[in-house]
Amino acid sequence: MLFHVRMNVNLPTSMPADEAAQLKQTEKEFSQRLQREGKWRHLWRIAGQYANVSLFDVDSVDELHALLTALPLFPYMQVEVMALCRHPSSIHEDDR
Amino acid sequence: MLFHVRMNVNLPTSMPADEAAQLKQTEKEFSQRLQREGKWRHLWRIAGQYANVSLFDVDSVDELHALLTALPLFPYMQVEVMALCRHPSSIHEDDR
Amino acid sequence: MLFHVRMNVNLPTSMPADEAAQLKQTEKEFSQRLQREGKWRHLWRIAGQYANVSLFDVDSVDELHALLTALPLFPYMQVEVMALCRHPSSIHEDDR
Amino acid sequence: MLFHVRMNVNLPTSMPADEAAQLKQTEKEFSQRLQREGKWRHLWRIAGQYANVSLFDVDSVDELHALLTALPLFPYMQVEVMALCRHPSSIHEDDR
Amino acid sequence: MLFHVRMNVNLPTSMPADEAAQLKQTEKEFSQRLQREGKWRHLWRIAGQYANVSLFDVDSVDELHALLTALPLFPYMQVEVMALCRHPSSIHEDDR
Amino acid sequence: MLFHVRMNVNLPTSMPADEAAQLKQTEKEFSQRLQREGKWRHLWRIAGQYANVSLFDVDSVDELHALLTALPLFPYMQVEVMALCRHPSSIHEDDR
Amino acid sequence: MLFHVRMNVNLPTSMPADEAAQLKQTEKEFSQRLQREGKWRHLWRIAGQYANVSLFDVDSVDELHALLTALPLFPYMQVEVMALCRHPSSIHEDDR
Amino acid sequence: MLFHVRMNVNLPTSMPADEAAQLKQTEKEFSQRLQREGKWRHLWRIAGQYANVSLFDVDSVDELHALLTALPLFPYMQVEVMALCRHPSSIHEDDR
Amino acid sequence: MLFHVRMNVNLPTSMPADEAAQLKQTEKEFSQRLQREGKWRHLWRIAGQYANVSLFDVDSVDELHALLTALPLFPYMQVEVMALCRHPSSIHEDDR
Amino acid sequence: MLFHVRMNVNLPTSMPADEAAQLKQTEKEFSQRLQREGKWRHLWRIAGQYANVSLFDVDSVDELHALLTALPLFPYMQVEVMALCRHPSSIHEDDR
Repeated sequence: MLFHVRMNVNLPTSMPADEAAQLKQTEKEFSQRLQREGKWRHLWRIAGQYANVSLFDVDSVDELHALLTALPLFPYMQVEVMALCRHPSSIHEDDR
Repeated sequence: MLFHVRMNVNLPTSMPADEAAQLKQTEKEFSQRLQREGKWRHLWRIAGQYANVSLFDVDSVDELHALLTALPLFPYMQVEVMALCRHPSSIHEDDR
Repeated sequence: MLFHVRMNVNLPTSMPADEAAQLKQTEKEFSQRLQREGKWRHLWRIAGQYANVSLFDVDSVDELHALLTALPLFPYMQVEVMALCRHPSSIHEDDR
Repeated sequence: MLFHVRMNVNLPTSMPADEAAQLKQTEKEFSQRLQREGKWRHLWRIAGQYANVSLFDVDSVDELHALLTALPLFPYMQVEVMALCRHPSSIHEDDR
Repeated sequence: MLFHVRMNVNLPTSMPADEAAQLKQTEKEFSQRLQREGKWRHLWRIAGQYANVSLFDVDSVDELHALLTALPLFPYMQVEVMALCRHPSSIHEDDR
Repeated sequence: MLFHVRMNVNLPTSMPADEAAQLKQTEKEFSQRLQREGKWRHLWRIAGQYANVSLFDVDSVDELHALLTALPLFPYMQVEVMALCRHPSSIHEDDR
Repeated sequence: MLFHVRMNVNLPTSMPADEAAQLKQTEKEFSQRLQREGKWRHLWRIAGQYANVSLFDVDSVDELHALLTALPLFPYMQVEVMALCRHPSSIHEDDR
Repeated sequence: MLFHVRMNVNLPTSMPADEAAQLKQTEKEFSQRLQREGKWRHLWRIAGQYANVSLFDVDSVDELHALLTALPLFPYMQVEVMALCRHPSSIHEDDR
Repeated sequence: MLFHVRMNVNLPTSMPADEAAQLKQTEKEFSQRLQREGKWRHLWRIAGQYANVSLFDVDSVDELHALLTALPLFPYMQVEVMALCRHPSSIHEDDR
Repeated sequence: MLFHVRMNVNLPTSMPADEAAQLKQTEKEFSQRLQREGKWRHLWRIAGQYANVSLFDVDSVDELHALLTALPLFPYMQVEVMALCRHPSSIHEDDR
């Protein structure tokens, strides 16, 4: 099942630069592992913002929640989830 | 370039059923042609709503606007466009 | 899987009374069938409004969307869906 | 009487980890006691958020307020209450 | 129990004047009966608007909903309900 | 004249407990004096929130402002004022 | 007492031109009479909108409400009232 | 030209009392000088809030911006500007 | 002086096609005359919407209002005006 | 391609004055270099706010995002991007 997830990140400006860099690096590795596993199907940056639009492909809402709350940056994120389904006009069999 | 487009459709309940059906059929054919051409990369239905989330892949903003305003359902739509760009953590070369 | 659905109904005041009554009766029967099948787990009226809060228990987002858009009152509804999951502090095994 | 309660939790990121863990543990025990007493009928996590949707079954608004403000996490919560009543189409006698 | 109710009335400007007058008169009589019965404790006009703030004193949420939806103007109203309880600093025993 | 006032209180969680308790005690005494004088006609707690709905009965807007800004908790409040007037359907002579 | 009033006018585009002209003319005369009487102290157009910002100087909220609802355009207006009082830094004795 | 300006002031509660008092005194003197010069035509307090509604009479938008950003409290303000013009129904020649 | 104007157009879908075409043609000619006169400095379409962002260069707010309300499409527009001024970092002398 | 960008700046009031001055100076130099290169076509101050409206002329959304996130003040900014295209009524060939 597909879920549309928007993540807005708000790192406090007082966070030391290396702590922020470390956090982002861990986030990147975590994100790329989920992408390789096919759970995190799409990941796009929203222009001009420290925010992204993502598409998750999971077996259940519980799995989605577990993945999102395990993100290293989760404590600094505002997250909005929107359930998607196959569009009757879509020509992509696999795009659900 | 990728643009995230959300379309909310509001057909008046007074519209005759066959007029609505004809309009939706034309919209579907138009949409599928754009999908085959690769301009309309993704098309998902938002659960519980007569609305969709779409990803357009176009050469310019002008092209995007021309495509959207040519949609048969455009006069009945509320459309929101969000410019996307490649996310540094994305592993998909072609997903921009 | 559980989904939290809020439905706001806006019947036009110009709709003839018997047409509205017929529509509501069909809606009621449809709703009660889904409740008996266990798909529509909870259904509560929001005080002072022609609106409800419902909990759907479905196998997929596609099934949820199919059920909601099949509602006789759907063309007159504003619907908001929120994906829910089991709360770690919940003591109800079956309440997901 | 049933009340729909949405709780959004905002723990400051500066709170020491063990203080947060202690607070959450106390909250969990408090919540589970209320669930066993039947006051807190349903408790669901909202996907992707540190937030929940709950259904309280209380004898009065005063009782509801007393329960909510006694929650250990209350000072860190944003709470929204919505009064519910039995829906005429509901088939569940006990679901009010 | 006390509930704070805000009612915004939107009569269509196309409604014939005598139909509107009749509707308002019926509403007034209904409202005054509820006031005499003590169910509708307070009723104030919001300055500059066709809207009111009311305090209802009812035995249950179901009773509140039944009263509100029985109002002759209900089909033309937007209604917001807020549950109130006794304030610990209030000196009025009967004001709950 | 009657004014509807909603007060939302936001005490910083870092405020020492005895300082908060002292502040609330002073607020309570101040509030009760105004109630006894008839200036603060009604005071209700909003369920689930550190907020209240109040009705003030004052001779002028200036008097209202002077009372509100003199509240010990005023620096921690968000206040919204709404001017009310007598409703033509009200049966309470003294309820303005 | 001074009240800040914002009026947004929405005449239906289907209203016959002469009916609209007549309505506006009556509104103008009514407004100018109130200005001459000193009740309507200021009247400004908001740039680019069929809307105004006005300052009313009345003896009570009831008087304000009576004046506003007597406006010929009132059925087509959205009105917002804000109570004002003398600013301690104002140098204008009469500007309240 | 007239501009409608709303200023909401948010002084941090942690600011020392004498620093706040000094700031407000400087603001008051600055404001009164502009009033005497005719630039700041009206200044009213919004009831129940640390906020004001002001009318500025300036020769250009640049002048308006220069005046507003020179206010001692500007760093603690949220400011909203609305361009006004003469209303065709206004009877005050000088009220623009 | 420069003003930033956003115009959203909402033509009723029931308007006859030739009436709409005529209206748009008149609007276009009017707009181009103002552009040639230098009053309407910039005019851009917002992607995906029947809306534009415009920059007007006028001598006064009154002139701005006169121009906007004279637009043939004005009765079908929602207009928002924002006063702009020269930015201290701008390198364009004439861009104000 | 043109993008409409609104930037709201929120420097913490606790930032030392010389650090803020240094940051603003770097921002100014960066901004003026982009203006000279033709990337940042327009830059206007919004009256009464520490905010600007800008027009960027870039080859891609990725370039836009790279420029915006490289701004020295970016960590203190709230940024909103809106894609623009040539308006059919525009008479300026180069204004896109």
